[in-house]
This record gives sequence, structure tokens and C-alpha cells, in this order.
Amino acid sequence: MGDTLRPGEQTLAFDPGARADASVCFIGHIRSPWGPDTETPKNIGKARATGQDARIELADGFGDGLLGLKVGQPLIVTYWMHLGRRDLIVQAPRHADGPCGTFALRSPRRPNPMAMSTVLITSLDQGAGVIGIDAIDAFDRTPVVDIKPWLGTVDLPPNR
Amino acid sequence: MGDTLRPGEQTLAFDPGARADASVCFIGHIRSPWGPDTETPKNIGKARATGQDARIELADGFGDGLLGLKVGQPLIVTYWMHLGRRDLIVQAPRHADGPCGTFALRSPRRPNPMAMSTVLITSLDQGAGVIGIDAIDAFDRTPVVDIKPWLGTVDLPPNR
Repeated sequence: MGDTLRPGEQTLAFDPGARADASVCFIGHIRSPWGPDTETPKNIGKARATGQDARIELADGFGDGLLGLKVGQPLIVTYWMHLGRRDLIVQAPRHADGPCGTFALRSPRRPNPMAMSTVLITSLDQGAGVIGIDAIDAFDRTPVVDIKPWLGTVDLPPNR
Repeated sequence: MGDTLRPGEQTLAFDPGARADASVCFIGHIRSPWGPDTETPKNIGKARATGQDARIELADGFGDGLLGLKVGQPLIVTYWMHLGRRDLIVQAPRHADGPCGTFALRSPRRPNPMAMSTVLITSLDQGAGVIGIDAIDAFDRTPVVDIKPWLGTVDLPPNR
């Protein structure tokens, strides 16, 4: 699994990547200006502040799934952060005040390495299967596992 | 794949469930009052209106991942809706005005059958790996694939 642990970090006794309870199909990829050799924004807010947009290129056959989406609509993009280890259950991020459980963090290092961001649709090409989005904080070519419309009735906490 | 198509519905030429680009590990299960034989709420708002709470029971080893979460905090629960077909790319829901792409809908019938709801933490037992939540619209024993803190900076559309 590679990298060494920081003080306070804990791992599971097994690798969640080796427990295949179900399979995921990549529906496409993110295209972004970011990569291992760029200064990559640490979160979607910082990505947005760069003014750099991005897009999602769907794999063949998935374009018709965009029918009914509209430019300007908020979208939840779920992507697969395949580069990190999956067995960290307590982490010690540099920004935090001590160790923190993986489920209390948005770290991409988690049992199922899915990240999600809420973005705005800036363009839609159903035939080509391409969605322009206002920003993303993921590396170019990160696999996408789902896109869904953001709905206040489902996605806002009840006390907001 | 079972059920018949409604007018206007389209399927992919392949089954996404047979394209295993990555594997998912179930981190636990939802415990809820709902099942195939109950009147199950159609969405989280209706589930909340019933006044029935629910909980997430984590699988062995995952409880330490709760460290740092707090009662009252909003949480995004991602769960695996394993009962539906995965090859529907255009759907004709009864509530909609004609066919709609799967990615424009929150339907559980999608290439990767993940649903997500934003809920409130009502209790936490890190040792037992149990999280009480205010409501959920999923059947009892639905597998859970991720839980994350809801963060306004990531999960609110930029224009809110």
C-alpha cells in the first residue's frame, strides 16, 4: 500500500480493496488542468477560485443519460480516487488538530475511494457525451462513477 | 435484469454490472423500518416526515473511522441499491413529463446503483460502530458504501 503512517494513524486489519462486495463501472473521466506535476487545488472552492473550468467525458453509450439536464443546473459528480490506499481508518491530516476517523474526513484515502463535489453545468453535448462544469479539484483523467442532479430536498441538511 | 421497459425507456448495449473497473467493499448496513412489505417513503423528506429514525451498523473494524464526528452534525450516507437493473440509460418515471436520462434523475436504477442522502447524526457509538440518524428512505439492511461529513463549502452549489 506504499506510504508510511503518520503518528496516530491506524489501519484496518484487512485491505477493503480486496473485499469485492460489488463492482463499479467507470462511466467516463474528468478532464481538468490538474495533475501530479501541477499545483492542484486542495478543494472545490480553491479550484473554483482559479477560474479554470473542466469537463466530464462520458464513455461510449452513456450520452443519452444526460437527457433532461440543463446548463446552469447543479450536479453532484462522484469520482474514484484510485491512487490512494484504502485501509486507513484513522488519519492525521496536517490541517487537523490530532487524529481523526476517516468517516469524519473528506480525505480521498478511504475504504471506497469516492469523492464528490457539487458543480454547475456550463455546457452539455448529449451526442458527444460531454458535460462542461465550472470547476473540479481532481486530476485530469480521474474516473467518474456517477453524476446526479443536486436537489435541495435531498442534499441539504434538514436544519438549513 | 427482469422488469419490462416503459414506453420511451432505453437500455445500454451492455450491462454495467459486468464491467468491473473497480470493486466496492460494503462498510456496513442501514437498519430502517422499511422493507418490500412496508409502505416505504419515496424520498428522504417523506422518510423524515414519518418521524421514524434509523441507524447505520458498521462492519467489524470500521468503528474507529467515526472518531471526530459529533451528534447533530450532517452526514452524507452513500448506499448501494443492489436490487435494480443497471442498464437503463433513459427512464420514464411515473412522476415525470416524458422520458428522462438516468443522470438527470435520482433513480436507484443507474450504472452504479449508488444513492445518497444527507442526514443528521442523532447518536454515535464508536465502540459498537453504530450511528443513529434522523431518517432514511432505504430498505432495512441496504449496504452502505461510504459516510462523509456534509460540508457547505463542498456540497452547496456555488450560487447558494
